[in-house]
Amino acid sequence: MALTPARTMPGTLELLPLEQIAFQRMLDTIRCNFEHFGFLPVETPVMEFSDVLLTKQGGETERQVYFVQSTGALEKPAAGLPELALRFDLTVPLARYVAEHEHDLNFPFRRYQIQRVYRGERAQRGRFREFYQCDIDVIGKDALSLRYDAEIPAVIYSVFRDLAIGPFTIWLNNRKLMRGFFESVGIADGEKQALALREVDKLDKRGAEPVRDTLMGDGFGLSAAAAAKILDFVKIRSSGHADALSKLDALGAGNATLAEGVAELKQTLEGIRAFGVPQTHYAINLSIARGLDYYTGTVYETTLNEHPQIGSICSGGRYDNLASNYTKSHLPGVGISIGATRLFWQLREAGLLPAAGSTIKVLVTQMDEAQLPAYLQLASELRAAGIATEVVLEPGKLGKQFKYADRAGIRLVLVLGSDEIAKGTVMVKDMRRQDQVEVPRAELVARLRDALQRDEDKPA
Amino acid sequence: MALTPARTMPGTLELLPLEQIAFQRMLDTIRCNFEHFGFLPVETPVMEFSDVLLTKQGGETERQVYFVQSTGALEKPAAGLPELALRFDLTVPLARYVAEHEHDLNFPFRRYQIQRVYRGERAQRGRFREFYQCDIDVIGKDALSLRYDAEIPAVIYSVFRDLAIGPFTIWLNNRKLMRGFFESVGIADGEKQALALREVDKLDKRGAEPVRDTLMGDGFGLSAAAAAKILDFVKIRSSGHADALSKLDALGAGNATLAEGVAELKQTLEGIRAFGVPQTHYAINLSIARGLDYYTGTVYETTLNEHPQIGSICSGGRYDNLASNYTKSHLPGVGISIGATRLFWQLREAGLLPAAGSTIKVLVTQMDEAQLPAYLQLASELRAAGIATEVVLEPGKLGKQFKYADRAGIRLVLVLGSDEIAKGTVMVKDMRRQDQVEVPRAELVARLRDALQRDEDKPA
Repeated sequence: MALTPARTMPGTLELLPLEQIAFQRMLDTIRCNFEHFGFLPVETPVMEFSDVLLTKQGGETERQVYFVQSTGALEKPAAGLPELALRFDLTVPLARYVAEHEHDLNFPFRRYQIQRVYRGERAQRGRFREFYQCDIDVIGKDALSLRYDAEIPAVIYSVFRDLAIGPFTIWLNNRKLMRGFFESVGIADGEKQALALREVDKLDKRGAEPVRDTLMGDGFGLSAAAAAKILDFVKIRSSGHADALSKLDALGAGNATLAEGVAELKQTLEGIRAFGVPQTHYAINLSIARGLDYYTGTVYETTLNEHPQIGSICSGGRYDNLASNYTKSHLPGVGISIGATRLFWQLREAGLLPAAGSTIKVLVTQMDEAQLPAYLQLASELRAAGIATEVVLEPGKLGKQFKYADRAGIRLVLVLGSDEIAKGTVMVKDMRRQDQVEVPRAELVARLRDALQRDEDKPA
Repeated sequence: MALTPARTMPGTLELLPLEQIAFQRMLDTIRCNFEHFGFLPVETPVMEFSDVLLTKQGGETERQVYFVQSTGALEKPAAGLPELALRFDLTVPLARYVAEHEHDLNFPFRRYQIQRVYRGERAQRGRFREFYQCDIDVIGKDALSLRYDAEIPAVIYSVFRDLAIGPFTIWLNNRKLMRGFFESVGIADGEKQALALREVDKLDKRGAEPVRDTLMGDGFGLSAAAAAKILDFVKIRSSGHADALSKLDALGAGNATLAEGVAELKQTLEGIRAFGVPQTHYAINLSIARGLDYYTGTVYETTLNEHPQIGSICSGGRYDNLASNYTKSHLPGVGISIGATRLFWQLREAGLLPAAGSTIKVLVTQMDEAQLPAYLQLASELRAAGIATEVVLEPGKLGKQFKYADRAGIRLVLVLGSDEIAKGTVMVKDMRRQDQVEVPRAELVARLRDALQRDEDKPA
């Protein structure tokens, strides 16, 4: 029989077990922090009805959607789009979820969702067609105070502190502030503001000159002074809490929209401080616009201080009305998303992933096949004590068993021959420290726990 | 603007947050046990190339497959099946994974995988089109001893013991034993054996008479004596370890295939005992055939003693060669699958789900808006101690805040007014016990941990 080549679709990140463990730890850290702040888990089906999913999205999103058909539907193709499609983010499913279950939820509704999403991207290095998003959102009914805008950075801070991937900054801006400013330099039209915001969004990629030229060109027709004002404005970044407040004050009274944006941003900054986020880890950055059109107030980005090339690793913002396509209820919200697959891939590329040990903490070797029942009994005790333990079930050279433990990232190896059994001891070899101690059986669990605790305190 | 009705596809199980928490706990328990036995995590993309996924599957499976097309592919339909399809189980992706990464894996390769799979089933109560499978498999290279067949029930035992959904039995059979027996009663042809096995598989659903009639009818043409022998054979169930061995001995020498099956099953039973599984929790059941054609040795089913109508909640077996469609390597394996979505749904229907508290353990109420910074500070300390804490961010009546905690399943509620702040105490209300104590701030973390510990020991 001819073999089918085993292969996976490009644009997916399939991991070997040790990498998968590292990735799983990242997701666990994120999830644990989301839960610590009182966000509740939600999972939605990977498929949504196409009409539900594509209510308001533009052509760009629609071109990237994966449609789903059962075999029956393939046989009898209907006119129009297929009935089902894979979600391309977790925000549209959240809107649908909140509208569908509105009367069973408590508002403000804090939810987290950690699932994969799908985009039919062109295959390209570092671009994923299937990737995890880790989202939190707070959805209010009718109103939602700025205190929730301040809570979000507290969660971001706590997540990235625990992920321990180096110093980072949570950048803040406010769309009203930005809109007010654009009005003040002569871009009053909403559509044009959106276009200008999109231009400014390209600043990092294109550089100041081309952006200035565009702003002074036919589309916008700004004066050199106005264009310069914009380019000065988007350079504004703060360093420390007081500096952020004084830079906001320095913007002056301006128009009502700008003033409202400034007031909101100041209140959000005060809230962030009250939440205990160190002032080294948040700052204003008036260039942040976020591509998505639905943000209406606070916007967030987060970057690694020592790896700016990675770009934002956690972004989001405040939106006026989440589910207007599905319900007449007014549901304002604020939230962020961490693209975990892309983040993991980038950290790996940059060599920033900590060396991950195995989920298996202990290997019970098979020194003497006749003692297998004793090895199984020992493993049973360790598992009952919460220590993940593998037993070598087939006889083999001890040296090979050690090599296996080493390659598999298993920290502790137990050797138990008839001598040790007679003495009531176990030989414990620590693969990382390369030392070996004989431990009385009665103390074994406590000693292993100590060793594993050390392991967690001081990663390799 | 017209609203789009918010709705989900039938055949999916979308849960409200408190149910999702209960479901997540079930998955966590399963995962934790898989890891304790040394199984390593693997995740595969939800989509596979259609030619990889559908190498050997029959028409039934193919009719249930969901195919995936990006918008571009919809515009230019190609001849034949679409390029991509959603996995319908975790076994085919495992075969592909092992063949693709063969040289990077350690064999025997113990892997677990907890992900959703997709089947285009007819919509029907209790039938799911999207559902979680929790699989473990051990894959050997060239050979895999029966000790691994014995390890699998040890994992099953440990999972269902920890899920605490009542007494259960792990049923064992062996396909060789069954095949040898069928040969001995005159069904020598392999195809016919498969058909007879399928008939016997329907015993519970159809009853003995119709199955006997089929066996004596044109297709099989067995004598009444032979048919009676089969029906006696498949009734054999053991009670306790010794009874299992003696019932196997009572089958007699028979032919070589039967003898091999008996020897394998006896060895597996001895192994299961060595792994420490109580003999109350495993038994032989010679009626178990398993629908899938690829099992070649041991087969498993697991049922809840007090809820036989639920059927098998964990099934699997031994197969000769996992990845013969993708590689020339000989890769025998043994494994099982838990259909977690269906199990959760059935437990909920049967009222067997333990009342799940929230992931949020503590609610810090807002008694006095001016004290919000103190509340945030307190929450920060609790989170640092690993206690998931929600803070009421907006002012409101205290009674309403208590009601919210009750409805949301939050166990402990803290009240902190200016009196308590002055005294350095916190009022702790236990929503389940309906008691309230004033606790010195310095002892708070320890006291909350105690209360939550009690919570875990004695579920409501």
